[in-house]
Amino acid sequence: MSIEKTKALVSALGKRKIDMYRKDFLLTWEKSLAEIEATFDVARIFKMMRDANVSSRIWDSGIAVSNFRDNSTRTRFSYSSAADLLGLYVQDLDEGKSQIAHGETVRETATMISFLAEAIGIRDDMYLGEGDRYQREVGKSLDEAVAAGVLPDRPTVVNLQSDIDHPTQSMADFLHLAEHFGGLDKLKGKKIAMTWAYSPSYGKPLSVPQGIIGLASRFGMDITLAHPEGYDLIPEVVELSAKQAKASGGAFRKVHSMEDAFKGADIVYPKSWAPYDVMQKRVPLLHAGDNAGLKDLEKACLANNAKFKTWECDEAKMKLTKGGKALYMHCLPADITGVSCAAGEVAASVFDRYRDDTYREAGWKPYIIAAMILLGKRENPAATLSALLKRGTPRQL
Amino acid sequence: MSIEKTKALVSALGKRKIDMYRKDFLLTWEKSLAEIEATFDVARIFKMMRDANVSSRIWDSGIAVSNFRDNSTRTRFSYSSAADLLGLYVQDLDEGKSQIAHGETVRETATMISFLAEAIGIRDDMYLGEGDRYQREVGKSLDEAVAAGVLPDRPTVVNLQSDIDHPTQSMADFLHLAEHFGGLDKLKGKKIAMTWAYSPSYGKPLSVPQGIIGLASRFGMDITLAHPEGYDLIPEVVELSAKQAKASGGAFRKVHSMEDAFKGADIVYPKSWAPYDVMQKRVPLLHAGDNAGLKDLEKACLANNAKFKTWECDEAKMKLTKGGKALYMHCLPADITGVSCAAGEVAASVFDRYRDDTYREAGWKPYIIAAMILLGKRENPAATLSALLKRGTPRQL
Amino acid sequence: MSIEKTKALVSALGKRKIDMYRKDFLLTWEKSLAEIEATFDVARIFKMMRDANVSSRIWDSGIAVSNFRDNSTRTRFSYSSAADLLGLYVQDLDEGKSQIAHGETVRETATMISFLAEAIGIRDDMYLGEGDRYQREVGKSLDEAVAAGVLPDRPTVVNLQSDIDHPTQSMADFLHLAEHFGGLDKLKGKKIAMTWAYSPSYGKPLSVPQGIIGLASRFGMDITLAHPEGYDLIPEVVELSAKQAKASGGAFRKVHSMEDAFKGADIVYPKSWAPYDVMQKRVPLLHAGDNAGLKDLEKACLANNAKFKTWECDEAKMKLTKGGKALYMHCLPADITGVSCAAGEVAASVFDRYRDDTYREAGWKPYIIAAMILLGKRENPAATLSALLKRGTPRQL
Repeated sequence: MSIEKTKALVSALGKRKIDMYRKDFLLTWEKSLAEIEATFDVARIFKMMRDANVSSRIWDSGIAVSNFRDNSTRTRFSYSSAADLLGLYVQDLDEGKSQIAHGETVRETATMISFLAEAIGIRDDMYLGEGDRYQREVGKSLDEAVAAGVLPDRPTVVNLQSDIDHPTQSMADFLHLAEHFGGLDKLKGKKIAMTWAYSPSYGKPLSVPQGIIGLASRFGMDITLAHPEGYDLIPEVVELSAKQAKASGGAFRKVHSMEDAFKGADIVYPKSWAPYDVMQKRVPLLHAGDNAGLKDLEKACLANNAKFKTWECDEAKMKLTKGGKALYMHCLPADITGVSCAAGEVAASVFDRYRDDTYREAGWKPYIIAAMILLGKRENPAATLSALLKRGTPRQL
Repeated sequence: MSIEKTKALVSALGKRKIDMYRKDFLLTWEKSLAEIEATFDVARIFKMMRDANVSSRIWDSGIAVSNFRDNSTRTRFSYSSAADLLGLYVQDLDEGKSQIAHGETVRETATMISFLAEAIGIRDDMYLGEGDRYQREVGKSLDEAVAAGVLPDRPTVVNLQSDIDHPTQSMADFLHLAEHFGGLDKLKGKKIAMTWAYSPSYGKPLSVPQGIIGLASRFGMDITLAHPEGYDLIPEVVELSAKQAKASGGAFRKVHSMEDAFKGADIVYPKSWAPYDVMQKRVPLLHAGDNAGLKDLEKACLANNAKFKTWECDEAKMKLTKGGKALYMHCLPADITGVSCAAGEVAASVFDRYRDDTYREAGWKPYIIAAMILLGKRENPAATLSALLKRGTPRQL
Repeated sequence: MSIEKTKALVSALGKRKIDMYRKDFLLTWEKSLAEIEATFDVARIFKMMRDANVSSRIWDSGIAVSNFRDNSTRTRFSYSSAADLLGLYVQDLDEGKSQIAHGETVRETATMISFLAEAIGIRDDMYLGEGDRYQREVGKSLDEAVAAGVLPDRPTVVNLQSDIDHPTQSMADFLHLAEHFGGLDKLKGKKIAMTWAYSPSYGKPLSVPQGIIGLASRFGMDITLAHPEGYDLIPEVVELSAKQAKASGGAFRKVHSMEDAFKGADIVYPKSWAPYDVMQKRVPLLHAGDNAGLKDLEKACLANNAKFKTWECDEAKMKLTKGGKALYMHCLPADITGVSCAAGEVAASVFDRYRDDTYREAGWKPYIIAAMILLGKRENPAATLSALLKRGTPRQL
């Protein structure tokens, strides 16, 4: 991609009306459409700069805090890669190693780690009703510390997965879709099936399907949410998505059949999750460290899951989609039948055909995170990007 | 702050007679007053440079080893932030993951991690009589390796808390005091109460109170050390502090009443610690991994603590201080009554009033650590700082 | 060392016929002699540049993945130091913390961590028959991802110790030998004793002795491999070494006596390892998590080891070497009699005499790793090194 094209995109970004400076990126539906598009712009610009060997090192020093309250490989690497791309050093806030359990308040910790920090990425998705709340508490503490003159600047909080949304995932997913279909405007009217799929595991968060319907409904898409009875998402997110779909000129319906959802779909996103009420029951057990209770819940949940083994994205169901060629999506890792488990979310032959697509989908995540950080840190992000282009430091010699 | 003011401070630094090059920073009382002041100068300069968006990246590559033999959040972040500010990459020496337990000598490890290292930060505060010794052993090994031509340069060892002193804490504390009272010279004659406070925990190191009396006594302050009978500090440090207080034109006394210590105080530092003899008894139990023995000791110690629940920094006691408005200090996290525990070191209303002060106090730590590293690494630190100012690379675009 | 000498070495490097671009560094015997020598050249150049305060920061951003499937201190630091020297940020792939156990394939993980990666260092030495295979699987996955256009560039895989070879160790060892004897060509005809030594531990990998004979046999050296009966290495590696020795004009023999091996030796490398057949038996036990089985095997193995306590590199045996002054080598940490154990691989007095030599030996490792990374990443490494010299950014101010 040429530098001219990059400059044009920076210039277009400069014209968008956005209000993201000193704001966190927690839920996509808190962001205006212009802000969503600005995030895609910046992600694309960072990728174009890297392809053109232009360094996007904005900071000569600075800390990016990484606070993973649940395991992660790909998001951890995406966050590190994004931070490093901008010149930030990643310091883990490892609550196992730290003194946080010893009575520190969130407020204090948030301040103590932020004296020289520019960004704080948080994953907290295990506890329904708590992850998003924690992220907001951190943000509020930072606002207070800035207001009190305790912190020199406001680090941006980036939601790396909460109980409610997984915006770095969903935004990467939709930038992938925009690239695949030739533009974000091309998504209007496209049929997307966000559907539950069988998995021999339990307790998978709800944030991915919620993130997908919460974002798809902004672009006038025709959304079908499919899952077995009882496998509900957070009701408020489903309601909001329906409302947003209507407002954006799209459609939203809920069905209890994967086949139904796949019929005529342009895009399918088959992915397992735990039922909403199981996630609710889990929280007090997790807090109590009640391993026996958790085991019992897992057993009951897996037994229930097993009733829905036919919820697999197999060749027969793919044939139901538009021309049999819907785009398959997944946040990875997928439970692939006969590969990573005996029976799973997707047939091996289907996954094989779309593997590279899912990799490309994932490949946007570092750039999306870098964009979220920049947009929270600069009132005029286009000016900063122009300065980077003008400086023209090669990323590699 | 203007660049001119920064330049003036660099110039003043250049005139101080110091001998810190290739020396470690382990105990404040091993440093001359000029060296203490030089450390404050450099910390201030680094902060002023950051405020003025001037990069203080001295190194284009280089390792800062972090060796935490006890948990830490804030010091870990301070160290990382300091290292990153200077351009160094932090590599943890994680003795859990490493082969150190398998018969490696300290000498060998110290050398092996230092081929491309510029600094080594060490926290080793659990074992009375051992932490400081370990830090010196590392330093001696480095001297030998440099002398043998095995290492190209001498990394600076920075004490991130030992059994004896906690200089990055105490130096940040006193830079905060200097800022608060309008200069280090203003501390002369000020009354400071370093006092034990009740906490429902046990085994807290002695290094903070020792660090405070060991440093306060250099500036002609009027020091009261207060604790219940039996909660002694290391006798040698108390003796030294008394001697230093006298030499600097200050005063030092020991009392067994918090109220007594607070009377007329300009500054109060109420903080729990474990009695010296308990810390001594703990060492062989820790080495033996005698968990039952440790539990017994903890139980006895907590029972004894409970006799001194009135040792709380509450509003009534604050009223005894100078104009009822002494500056409250704490190294954080504090045990706050009704917040982090049922009964603790400080009343919630007192802590609330001084929260931002304690945050500002902590905020100096990254700059203090960066200063300690620079001063160990450069014979003429003023020249390096001048070069940074002249180069004028923006810290952020 | 002067810049002129560095430039001359860069120029010599430019003339070598090598094919290392986009190739991994897994086994030294897969590399041509020119490629081995090029690696030494680049390592030397990086060291010379550092000594001359020239930054070798090739990357302004980029990730170096570190994947340690076994403990490490020195190699971890060497890898970090090398990555940082080149401007790369090290991100650990910590399979404990990650989701890799949850059904992710190697292919997927390799791709997911590599979107912005330039290098992947892997230690996988515990499982005979598996470590090297895993490294190749990673490399193959990367090739596929590059071919599919999923990755923008091919990260270089560097073997940080496998079940077969330990090239960063052996290459550092031989660069040390080249320095010690005045040139790689001086190694021709030199007698080297690679011999087993007693250790009170068990399960040490075979990769170091295999790496040494596999590399020594390229330079026309006179190699004696010595070990008690039953303490075999992987037969294919021994056969290959014998063949290589012959081809390079050297010699290779196997004996069952340390004394025999030491006679007239210029270089001795006494080092413990576990017998090949024990390592084979260990694999299924490790996979099954059969701790009782592992304990039994350890017990039997230690009992057998104990028969060979005389296999110690002591003063008497050193007297048998050439002029009694053979160069002692070890990859460290050594089991030193009376220091790290009651009876071990080497007498304290012998080790003491050669300590600094072993440290110097180890000191090459960061530079060797940096060289391996560069050679995998640049078709014309001499051009990149010239550009670094021309740029002339100081490493430190």
